[in-house]
Amino acid sequence: MFFLPLDHSATLPYSFDMAEIRRDIVTDAWVIVQTEPAPAQPELAPESERCPFCSGHEAMTPPEVFSIRDASSQPNEPGWLVRVVPSHAPVLRVEGELKHHGVGIHDMVTGIGANEVVIETPEHVPALPDLAAGQITLVLQAYRQRINDLYQDQRLRYVLVFKNYRQGAGASNFTHSHSELIALPATPRLMKDELTGARNYFEYKERCLFCDILENELNAGSRVLLETPHFVVCAPYASRFPYELTVMPRRHNYAYEQASDIELDDLGRVMKRTLGALRAARDDPPYNYVLHTSPNLLPVQGYWQTIKDDYHWHLEIIPRTKRVAGFEWGSGFHINPIAPELAVKTLKGKL
Amino acid sequence: MFFLPLDHSATLPYSFDMAEIRRDIVTDAWVIVQTEPAPAQPELAPESERCPFCSGHEAMTPPEVFSIRDASSQPNEPGWLVRVVPSHAPVLRVEGELKHHGVGIHDMVTGIGANEVVIETPEHVPALPDLAAGQITLVLQAYRQRINDLYQDQRLRYVLVFKNYRQGAGASNFTHSHSELIALPATPRLMKDELTGARNYFEYKERCLFCDILENELNAGSRVLLETPHFVVCAPYASRFPYELTVMPRRHNYAYEQASDIELDDLGRVMKRTLGALRAARDDPPYNYVLHTSPNLLPVQGYWQTIKDDYHWHLEIIPRTKRVAGFEWGSGFHINPIAPELAVKTLKGKL
Repeated sequence: MFFLPLDHSATLPYSFDMAEIRRDIVTDAWVIVQTEPAPAQPELAPESERCPFCSGHEAMTPPEVFSIRDASSQPNEPGWLVRVVPSHAPVLRVEGELKHHGVGIHDMVTGIGANEVVIETPEHVPALPDLAAGQITLVLQAYRQRINDLYQDQRLRYVLVFKNYRQGAGASNFTHSHSELIALPATPRLMKDELTGARNYFEYKERCLFCDILENELNAGSRVLLETPHFVVCAPYASRFPYELTVMPRRHNYAYEQASDIELDDLGRVMKRTLGALRAARDDPPYNYVLHTSPNLLPVQGYWQTIKDDYHWHLEIIPRTKRVAGFEWGSGFHINPIAPELAVKTLKGKL
Repeated sequence: MFFLPLDHSATLPYSFDMAEIRRDIVTDAWVIVQTEPAPAQPELAPESERCPFCSGHEAMTPPEVFSIRDASSQPNEPGWLVRVVPSHAPVLRVEGELKHHGVGIHDMVTGIGANEVVIETPEHVPALPDLAAGQITLVLQAYRQRINDLYQDQRLRYVLVFKNYRQGAGASNFTHSHSELIALPATPRLMKDELTGARNYFEYKERCLFCDILENELNAGSRVLLETPHFVVCAPYASRFPYELTVMPRRHNYAYEQASDIELDDLGRVMKRTLGALRAARDDPPYNYVLHTSPNLLPVQGYWQTIKDDYHWHLEIIPRTKRVAGFEWGSGFHINPIAPELAVKTLKGKL
C-alpha cells in the first residue's frame, strides 16, 4: 500500500508536531504557533497517480469521521459521495487536556482542537462549480453535521469551515476539490468583532444588524448579485477585496448548523451559480470562502446570551486577485480598486 | 522633459480618480474604495533610464513637500539627502471638504487625505540596510516632520507610515529605496484595537501595557533580538508571521512624532542592523514595516484622553515569507509555522 508522506497529506501547507495557541495581549488575536522546527518536506508522488481524495484510495487517508454514502457500502471503502477525514498532519490535535497557561505577561492554551478535510466528490474534479448543485448540497450537509458533532465537545469554542481554492489562495498542491475545518479552543478575532458589532447594534436598535443590512441591500439593489427563495448574495458595501461576496440566508438564524435541508438545497444552487460567475468573470481566480457561524454556546452559557437574537450566520467569499500591500496587514485599513457595485455588474453578466 | 505616466508614478499599485472611504458597519473597519473604473495602465519606460526618485530627476515627481538638503541648494533640485513628494496618483486627495454621509444603513466619508512618498536616498540604492545608519536616521526624521505637519490638519485622524519592500510585499516596480505615508480621515482598525487594548490594561493595572511587555520580554530573553540604549527589538510572543519583529522604544512615549533626535540616531542603527539580519537570514525576503503611533489628538480632544498614559509607539516589521491561507484573512486567526523564539535564534546569528 502506498502512503503519502505524513506531512503532505494535510491540505494546509503546515505540519505541526507541537503547537501552542498564543494570545496577543494587545489585540486579543490568537495565533497557532509551531514550537518545534518543521521536519524536512519529502518529495511527493505525482498527484495524478496517487490522489488520496479519489474514490478507491480511501486507505491513503486516516479513517473517515463522517461520510455520505450508499447504504450498502462500508466506511473507508468506495460508495461515498462526500467524505470527511482527519488531516494527516493536523495543526491541532484532539487528544489531551485543554490548559490555559500564563507565560509571564502572556496567555496561551495547549494546541487542542481538530483539523479535518471535507472531500467534496469521489471523482477527481478540481472546481466546486463543476459539481452538480445536489452534490454541493451534500458538502454543505457535511459541514452542518461536523459542526454539530464537534460542538458536543466543550473544549472547542469555534469551528472554522473554509476553502482555499488554488495555490494563490493558500491551498496545498492537491487539486481534488476539498474544503477544510479547524475546530479551535478560542473564538477567532474577526468573529468576535462581528459578534460584538452585532450585539452593540441590537442593544441600540433591538433588531438584528444582518437582517437590517439585508433589507438595506435589497432596497439599494446595486450590490445584489443573486436572490433566491432562501438566500441573497451581495458584495459588501465596504468590500476589502475586489469581487468580495457575502452569501446571507434570508431567515434570521445565528447558527449555520441549524440551517434546514430546504435551505441547504437552495444554497447548493447558489454556490454553484455564484462561484461559476466568479470563475467566468475573472478567469478562474484563486479564492477563499469562510463560514461565519456562531461559536459553540455549550461552554459559554451566559457569556454570549444574546447571540441567538443578534447574530446571523453567513458565508464570505474572498477572491485573491489583488496583491495585498503591507500596510493593509499592518493596519486593517484596506484599499479596494474595484467598487463592489462595479464588481456586481460584471458578475451579473456571467450568472 | 520626460514625464512618467500619471498612474504609475505613485508607488502603491493603485490610482484613484474618485475614492470613497467606507465603513464596515459590522466590524468598524474602513476601506478606501475606488468608485470609478481605473484607467488602462500604459507601458513604463525602463526604470534604469528614468527613475523618478534619483537625484537629477526631480522634475519627474510633483514638487516636494519636504526635504533634507544642502543649505545652498534649491527645492526640487539636486542637493537633497531625503525628499518627500506627493504621490502622482494618490489614493486620497487633500483638497476638498471632509464630509460624513449616511448611505442607507452604511457610513462613508469623502476621500480626503494625503499620500506621500519618502525617497530615502538620492542614489539608486534598493535596500534600506545598504544605506548608512545616519542616512536612515534622516529618513526617520522625515517621517517625524511629516506626521507633525499633517497632524496640524484637523481633518486627518491618522498618518500611516509604511514600507513595502519588493513586489512580494505589495511594492510597485520602483526599486529605488522609498517608503510611503497615507494620511487618513479615520483611525485604522488595528490601531483602534491596540488603543482599546492598551486602555483596558491601563485601567486595570495603572501601567502602560507596552512598558510591561518590554519588561517581560527583557526578563524572558528568548524573543529579544537586539537591545540598544534606546530601543529593544523583539519577536512578538503571538507572532502572526514567521520572523515578525517589533521595534519598541524603551522610553514611554505615545507618539513617534515626539521621538528625540538622540532616539532617532539610535533607531537608524537599529533599523540597519535589524533589516540587515533579516535579509541575511532569509535570503532578502519581501517585507513590510508599519509605524504604529498615536492618532491625531487635535480633533479628538476628550475622546482619547488617556492615550498619553496608555499608548506607546512602536514599529512592526512583517516579512512576507508565508503564503497566507484564506481562513487567516477571513477569521483573524493565524497559523505561524516558525516559533518566534526560533526566528530570533536564527536572526541573532546574522546580526
